[in-house]
Amino acid sequence: MIKQKIIKPIRKAVTVPVKENEAVRFVALGGLEEIGRNMMFFEHKDEIVIIDAGLQFPEETTPGIDFIIPNVSYLEAKKKNIKALVITHGHYDHIGAIPYIMEKIGNPTIYTTALNKAIISRRQEEFTNAPKIDFELIKAGETRQLSEHFKAIFFGVAHTIPDSIGVILDTPAGNMVYPGDFRLDYDIDGKPKDMEVWKFISEHKIHSLFLDSTGADKEGYSISERVVEAEIEKIFKKSDGRIIIGTFASLLERLAEIIKISERHNRKVFISGFSMKANIQIAQSLGYMKIKKETIIPLEEINKYRDDKIVVLCTGAQGEPNASLMRIANGEHKQIQIKKGDTIILSSSIVPGNERSVQILMDDISRQGGIIYHSKMVDIHSSGHAPQEELKIVMKTIKPRFFIPVHGYYFMRWRSTQLAQETLKLKEEETVLVDNGQVVSLTKNSATITEETVPIYYVMVDGLGVGDVGEVVLRDRRVLAQEGMVVIITTLDRKTGRFLKNPDIISRGFIYLKENKELVEELRKRIRGLISRVPYQQIEADYLKAMMRDQLGQFLYTKTKRRPMILPVVIEV
Amino acid sequence: MIKQKIIKPIRKAVTVPVKENEAVRFVALGGLEEIGRNMMFFEHKDEIVIIDAGLQFPEETTPGIDFIIPNVSYLEAKKKNIKALVITHGHYDHIGAIPYIMEKIGNPTIYTTALNKAIISRRQEEFTNAPKIDFELIKAGETRQLSEHFKAIFFGVAHTIPDSIGVILDTPAGNMVYPGDFRLDYDIDGKPKDMEVWKFISEHKIHSLFLDSTGADKEGYSISERVVEAEIEKIFKKSDGRIIIGTFASLLERLAEIIKISERHNRKVFISGFSMKANIQIAQSLGYMKIKKETIIPLEEINKYRDDKIVVLCTGAQGEPNASLMRIANGEHKQIQIKKGDTIILSSSIVPGNERSVQILMDDISRQGGIIYHSKMVDIHSSGHAPQEELKIVMKTIKPRFFIPVHGYYFMRWRSTQLAQETLKLKEEETVLVDNGQVVSLTKNSATITEETVPIYYVMVDGLGVGDVGEVVLRDRRVLAQEGMVVIITTLDRKTGRFLKNPDIISRGFIYLKENKELVEELRKRIRGLISRVPYQQIEADYLKAMMRDQLGQFLYTKTKRRPMILPVVIEV
Repeated sequence: MIKQKIIKPIRKAVTVPVKENEAVRFVALGGLEEIGRNMMFFEHKDEIVIIDAGLQFPEETTPGIDFIIPNVSYLEAKKKNIKALVITHGHYDHIGAIPYIMEKIGNPTIYTTALNKAIISRRQEEFTNAPKIDFELIKAGETRQLSEHFKAIFFGVAHTIPDSIGVILDTPAGNMVYPGDFRLDYDIDGKPKDMEVWKFISEHKIHSLFLDSTGADKEGYSISERVVEAEIEKIFKKSDGRIIIGTFASLLERLAEIIKISERHNRKVFISGFSMKANIQIAQSLGYMKIKKETIIPLEEINKYRDDKIVVLCTGAQGEPNASLMRIANGEHKQIQIKKGDTIILSSSIVPGNERSVQILMDDISRQGGIIYHSKMVDIHSSGHAPQEELKIVMKTIKPRFFIPVHGYYFMRWRSTQLAQETLKLKEEETVLVDNGQVVSLTKNSATITEETVPIYYVMVDGLGVGDVGEVVLRDRRVLAQEGMVVIITTLDRKTGRFLKNPDIISRGFIYLKENKELVEELRKRIRGLISRVPYQQIEADYLKAMMRDQLGQFLYTKTKRRPMILPVVIEV
Repeated sequence: MIKQKIIKPIRKAVTVPVKENEAVRFVALGGLEEIGRNMMFFEHKDEIVIIDAGLQFPEETTPGIDFIIPNVSYLEAKKKNIKALVITHGHYDHIGAIPYIMEKIGNPTIYTTALNKAIISRRQEEFTNAPKIDFELIKAGETRQLSEHFKAIFFGVAHTIPDSIGVILDTPAGNMVYPGDFRLDYDIDGKPKDMEVWKFISEHKIHSLFLDSTGADKEGYSISERVVEAEIEKIFKKSDGRIIIGTFASLLERLAEIIKISERHNRKVFISGFSMKANIQIAQSLGYMKIKKETIIPLEEINKYRDDKIVVLCTGAQGEPNASLMRIANGEHKQIQIKKGDTIILSSSIVPGNERSVQILMDDISRQGGIIYHSKMVDIHSSGHAPQEELKIVMKTIKPRFFIPVHGYYFMRWRSTQLAQETLKLKEEETVLVDNGQVVSLTKNSATITEETVPIYYVMVDGLGVGDVGEVVLRDRRVLAQEGMVVIITTLDRKTGRFLKNPDIISRGFIYLKENKELVEELRKRIRGLISRVPYQQIEADYLKAMMRDQLGQFLYTKTKRRPMILPVVIEV
């Protein structure tokens, strides 16, 4: 299993004498050492309340897998105690694990808003064996008693998708607040909107603030969506050809804005990409998007319209190989190819790791004559995560007793902790910088990291398999990717130990054997020599294999300075 | 072989009636569709002048290889015509291929400055069989007749390494100017320095300007090294623990500044990293760095000094696994571990593709209590490539007749071409946006892309092999990395076609077979069924193998939704 943490934190765990009757335990199962896989829970006696259940996209160290989901083995063992799963918003890093874990954790009721419910339900349809989900529909401002000891007060937050909520959890240790992913929104004059929400929270005497720290390394304020809107509209005014806009299917606020701008400029909107179409339909049917009947036209009819009447909304602004924009740029899209006069707007940031794919995408588009606008050139994208100044505003307004940063890499959470210490004049021990799996004990007057941890090793989803790709398989994939492999098959007579045929050598990803006959012959010679040197009575397949692995591996390294994986097979007939 | 270009450019090649007697041919063998691998040449009749010979670091699509060098097969065939290799500066993206290609291209004389010569010579020592290089030492401002038709006038440019030069090539078609990698340098008042160099060039009536476009997508001006210096000094003033600075070993200007700041603050400098030590020694011995005798102390003696007297200079600011800073952060460094009170300055930008490694590096450091400053927080790094406003200044000063962007991805060169059209009022046909390998014909009054191309497919260096890793091997590595592989060995009786033993199944990177016995058994059953269905007289190993690959591959896909590489082996005894 992959150990997530190589380096022990300097901050030592402190063993606290916990008064079992009061203490509330807090654990994050994911989201604290990565972007994504957000899932955390609060536990008191025999009651557990979970917040979010997201997935994480694969990393360089996890080649070939589809994604990583939180490890729920701790919760599985206590599933009868789980009283609620609160979902803050409909992004996959907060809901993506639901189909995989719901049954394991005993199908608790999901408390969430209408849009989130619709998005979760639609995804659930893809999983034919998944059990029906029991939803408790809530609205911002409402309160629910989740269990004997936990009460939830929901509030609305601004994020890049409508119907996002945060929660004040009223617990035996005090009021815990988790706003989920958020940023501040601004009105036309650039003033922050909805400040009354944060004031409302501050009236609840907050014990601990669990704050999204993904933006904590960014200075300043969010770019207002009003600015983004205005910049996109400027590009609309300049363009007299087709406008093709690549963004995330999940940025529903942005999509709504773009559709409105298109309507103002008398352009029809053509949507390419299944997830984007589905999300827009859901948002529209729930009333989160008001779209004129004649605005959205099926993609198949795009050729009936003049170029200056066309807006294409598509996925793939990250250069994802199979997404619409990449297929458009590649010439593989059925209805759309780039042509001179096209304007392409990449209305998203670049997710770390996608830089090269996006560069290739931009190269391909500009090579074919498309004019590109990306978010480093003009303000046509704004992140959904509050940067430093907005984090400070929230801290100052809420004035929590303790601060616990969540979401984002250690360095980001460390930055957010520094901000909290400066802004709130908190002492170091009043800011709790924990890792995934560490158990925090919250009592009326303390928030302390305990020695206890719960399992958090990676659970990987690969094809139909959930959790069956482990560290052994991944390590092999990494070695195979770097140096390839050589299979050496020796077929021996069981009675005499003599070769029944010349050793078979198969290699992939190492060197092209057909062009290296000399090396293959020398390798064969060494195999024969190696086996003939072992008296037959002593031949033992495992020993022989280990010897081949060592000596032939060394031989190939000397010859090539590469270390392919050597797989010796001894067949005795 | 890897095709570099998937998308055909919209700009069509134009066949020109070339007056063979006048025309000068220009070709870039690398550097136009990537960052790195810079190498280009000019050809007239039986004379060829080459400029630079760099390497390119591997990409996601070239797993496991060490680096990529320019394809010199065109030059190899004409090596007797090669009159000179001009080297503009000592960075590996301009000199790295030298040890691999010099012999192939007939060991032409290298025209370069003293520091470049020293760096090239030191690297050459690592290649024991490499021939001795014939250098012609030149200084900025000097002129050399390289051959009958080519004369070179060298000029100095500001870059991140001293002794960088550009060249005006006086050719039968006119004066071609290539400044190499450069940016503008500024004095304390923020005024650009050395403007007289660009004016000097403009006095030569320039035919074509071959301009580094790596910075063409960045707005504004370079951050002055004076600002970088001042910001680093501010951090020195704040720190009372050790200061550990990670940067590139090749940023010699920066290293010189940091050493000076250290001297001003009475700190000793400890250097960790072979390449950094070697580069500083070379620069010092040639007089490019003036360092007090007592400033640099061997790393082994670091424990004799107080923390506030220590500056560690090290490589690895990109999170490279084996570089010093990563080993320091990992706890694997012999002399240095991170401790509370350390200040770590990452004085470099993040090379695209390294974002995650740098994040892990920062996480590991902050987890151990180190205070990190990186270049997005404060101006502690400045790129060596001129951004838009500086490119414009150079264009305006030189006023070339034609513009040919070099270096950087297509989108960057496209941006640079747009800038040239706007700034110089050039028509589209006066800006020549070519790709690697395309032959440009330059005559007195034209610069035209011809239909001709020279080979530019990737030559990959992997261990001792140069060019032996081709597309087949890489494709296999990519498949193996994603889905792993399954080797299926069936041992048959040559006479009867019956199984001599149960099929052997070996898999790596697919699933962990020991935990999936059922699947393995079912697979074996299918193999037996498959072979028993073929009448023995019809068994033909290749046919059998193809059938196994298809049907067993399909079976595994149905069971797992994964497509491992299937390697069937039929052994007949």
